[in-house]
Amino acid sequence: MVETCMNRPTSGARPDVLISECGPRDGLQSIDAIMATADKMRWIDALHAGGLREIEVCSFVPARLLPQMADAAEIVRHAIELPGLTVLALAPNLRGAEAALEAGAHKITIPVSASEAHSLANVRKTRNQMIDEVGRIVDLRNARAPHVGIEANISVAFGCSIQGIVPENDVIWLARELSAAGADETGLSDTTGYGNPAQTTRLFGQLRAAIGERAGAAHMHNTRGLGLANCFAAYEAGVRVFDSSLCGLGGCPYAPGASGNVVTEDLVFMFESMGISTGIDLGKLNLARAIVTESLPGVPVYGMVPEAGLPKGFVQESRNV
Amino acid sequence: MVETCMNRPTSGARPDVLISECGPRDGLQSIDAIMATADKMRWIDALHAGGLREIEVCSFVPARLLPQMADAAEIVRHAIELPGLTVLALAPNLRGAEAALEAGAHKITIPVSASEAHSLANVRKTRNQMIDEVGRIVDLRNARAPHVGIEANISVAFGCSIQGIVPENDVIWLARELSAAGADETGLSDTTGYGNPAQTTRLFGQLRAAIGERAGAAHMHNTRGLGLANCFAAYEAGVRVFDSSLCGLGGCPYAPGASGNVVTEDLVFMFESMGISTGIDLGKLNLARAIVTESLPGVPVYGMVPEAGLPKGFVQESRNV
Repeated sequence: MVETCMNRPTSGARPDVLISECGPRDGLQSIDAIMATADKMRWIDALHAGGLREIEVCSFVPARLLPQMADAAEIVRHAIELPGLTVLALAPNLRGAEAALEAGAHKITIPVSASEAHSLANVRKTRNQMIDEVGRIVDLRNARAPHVGIEANISVAFGCSIQGIVPENDVIWLARELSAAGADETGLSDTTGYGNPAQTTRLFGQLRAAIGERAGAAHMHNTRGLGLANCFAAYEAGVRVFDSSLCGLGGCPYAPGASGNVVTEDLVFMFESMGISTGIDLGKLNLARAIVTESLPGVPVYGMVPEAGLPKGFVQESRNV
Repeated sequence: MVETCMNRPTSGARPDVLISECGPRDGLQSIDAIMATADKMRWIDALHAGGLREIEVCSFVPARLLPQMADAAEIVRHAIELPGLTVLALAPNLRGAEAALEAGAHKITIPVSASEAHSLANVRKTRNQMIDEVGRIVDLRNARAPHVGIEANISVAFGCSIQGIVPENDVIWLARELSAAGADETGLSDTTGYGNPAQTTRLFGQLRAAIGERAGAAHMHNTRGLGLANCFAAYEAGVRVFDSSLCGLGGCPYAPGASGNVVTEDLVFMFESMGISTGIDLGKLNLARAIVTESLPGVPVYGMVPEAGLPKGFVQESRNV
């Protein structure tokens, strides 16, 4: 009997969950240091070699606002050469989406805040203006690159550090509107780390009831230590796509004290130890981690599993790389 | 609608879960610094004032082995004066149990390892010898203090850093034997932080199937970041008693890299934010936390919620103090 590792061998099969790595975007944009373009490319290559099949590689925003993302187009052009990888780029508006399409991104992700206050602070647009913007991005995509996916991601869906409580009805209303505007998928972000497992199960259940197969990824933060518990709750609610950040880089400038995204290494360990295949090789993730620590000296990195090591006797049978 | 705080007002009612604080025993015995007796008493008083209704206050072991616990009897005699508090003392053997009974502890907890290797390393007895020892402690209790509870706690139930994988059948066999020997409750400890949510649900389900109402507490560690996810999984499996350590003090000398117990502050926050009442006031826990940091200068303390603060708009309605 194998207790600490109930993995089923699934070599070659489709993994049970998709881990969407957001470190090169969410992580890098939240720190002051700027990773060199060549290092970003090496990092993305190492993530791909480790089995990641979706990576949010950059954000298309003006370089004066986020100098960390000045090389966005170059990064996309590099990443789309990696076989089997879905290259995701964030675009907060039509102009960014245009640049992302031009560079060749496979999928565009658009953040839309569930609270009006966060929306105005983050993108200086109301929620309704953002819904309209998503509609314009969908029109552009339909005209120029119909194969490209459009993902909306609802920020502060679990609570807002400006407004406080965010009514669940607001989140579900927004998800319906974004779907109606043409978003192929709409996911939920716990930008502020306010979420709890019961709320996570409830909200993702409501999301699926409202928009069916267009229900998207869980993007959970670990600000109050509940990131993995919430991912487990989301999995139980039927979610199969999870955003996370290698080394736990990342956060949101409007979430005070935010300790950032769920750590990819820990999330992969949780699923793999439960026998839920991710297609990701934990050993190879360490190589990607080494690139981050080498190329960003002095920047704090996180991860309980990298610190503690794998359990004695743990065999990752389900890797798919 | 209240989303980030679905608490039901339960003032005066019995809390939904019992948090059993193990910091004064598990936490203090794992650090080199020795907390002064008066500080221990102040800390236990502050925990009680914060709503804790079960505290593992000390360990009855020879002072040459654990000088941190030399004042065990004095601590028990102080703690039993606090109204409504169940005073728990650890005893690894008959001699310790005798001292605990003499001091007036309400409940004795006995660690019994699920792996033979860990048992020999930790208490220099085989598992069968420990089952016999529990029987002798039960006999002593029956003769001298029949109102005192006997709890067995199965260490390394989720995996062992010496042996590696621990067969689930071994854990359930041991739980049956300990119940047969007269333990009133038998809980499971993830001493090494090897557990995952699926395993936690499975093992506590098997425990309840095997020993019914004698199934005891979940004692989870956060070594690999899954402590709270595992507590949530245990709750889902019907567990209603959870061990945790204020400030995250604690760990096991045989679990290399162990970052210690689940943090009481974070565990209480998780349950309260889910609307599951703990009877504990998060604000008052900060006072207990301050006593730890003042009286153990230089000793690292943990806790995501104390660092990040409570969510904006969070109201703890369910406190019971």
